[in-house]
Amino acid sequence: MIFSEEQINNYMDQAIGEALQAKERAEVPIGCVIVDNQTGEVIGRGSNEREETQDAIKHAEIIAIEQACKAVGSWRLEHTSLFVTLEPCPMCAGAIINSRIEEVIFGASDPKAGSVGSIVNLLTETRYNHQPEVLANVKEQETGDLLRNFFREIRRKK
Amino acid sequence: MIFSEEQINNYMDQAIGEALQAKERAEVPIGCVIVDNQTGEVIGRGSNEREETQDAIKHAEIIAIEQACKAVGSWRLEHTSLFVTLEPCPMCAGAIINSRIEEVIFGASDPKAGSVGSIVNLLTETRYNHQPEVLANVKEQETGDLLRNFFREIRRKK
Repeated sequence: MIFSEEQINNYMDQAIGEALQAKERAEVPIGCVIVDNQTGEVIGRGSNEREETQDAIKHAEIIAIEQACKAVGSWRLEHTSLFVTLEPCPMCAGAIINSRIEEVIFGASDPKAGSVGSIVNLLTETRYNHQPEVLANVKEQETGDLLRNFFREIRRKK
Repeated sequence: MIFSEEQINNYMDQAIGEALQAKERAEVPIGCVIVDNQTGEVIGRGSNEREETQDAIKHAEIIAIEQACKAVGSWRLEHTSLFVTLEPCPMCAGAIINSRIEEVIFGASDPKAGSVGSIVNLLTETRYNHQPEVLANVKEQETGDLLRNFFREIRRKK
């Protein structure tokens, strides 16, 4: 890993901040930040926008990756790390491969769609042309509680 | 399959038309159309825009899916079919799962990134919450030649 434990926790806190913004908009609370590994600067941010946009592509990671590509002026995000509160789905894991992101740090595992260890692990598949480093389950309890509490509140309202 | 062989060939020709437009913009020629299964209308079109936009997400399928979501006003594309000239990569296969597309018809297989049979098959994985029907290798020679000729020309210019 490029960053220290303290830095990793700090960036995950920023991803959690993005997730909380999604929650305020009644979206499933998932958040993501992308960091330039050389400067430590956050160059992409995203939170889940699927419901408000009614667009299947608008996951937190995709929004952050598109913003980071704009920031660096390239589809290659080789010297960057992606922090996300939930294990990426196959679409987002594929987008991470396509953009050559160097490191992926995620919070809670996702048994329903997670594609970085839960259902499949796309990021260790050596037949793809890129394999990022992965650190799983950072702030697992906090990122998991965010989702569990959100769905508990929804069920209570029904 | 919902459509007849003649209809499938016709929609694949439209996807090839999109791929040819990408080629004119010096993009790797990959094209996609999404069809409403009830009306037969094309509700989404896309061709590869990765180089011109320098955006890792801008694959033909993603562009077509976002357009189709706008057309139907929903992230759910349940009664639609997606026609694409090349086997989808993991990102695009994941986007197909996420948008609940009913049928996927693709042209040439992609040994380097194909995730509908070549490297993995994400669309038959029953632990994801959706499995579309798949028809592989429609107009395989024509869609494959499109790519082979494109890369041959690039090598010649170097």
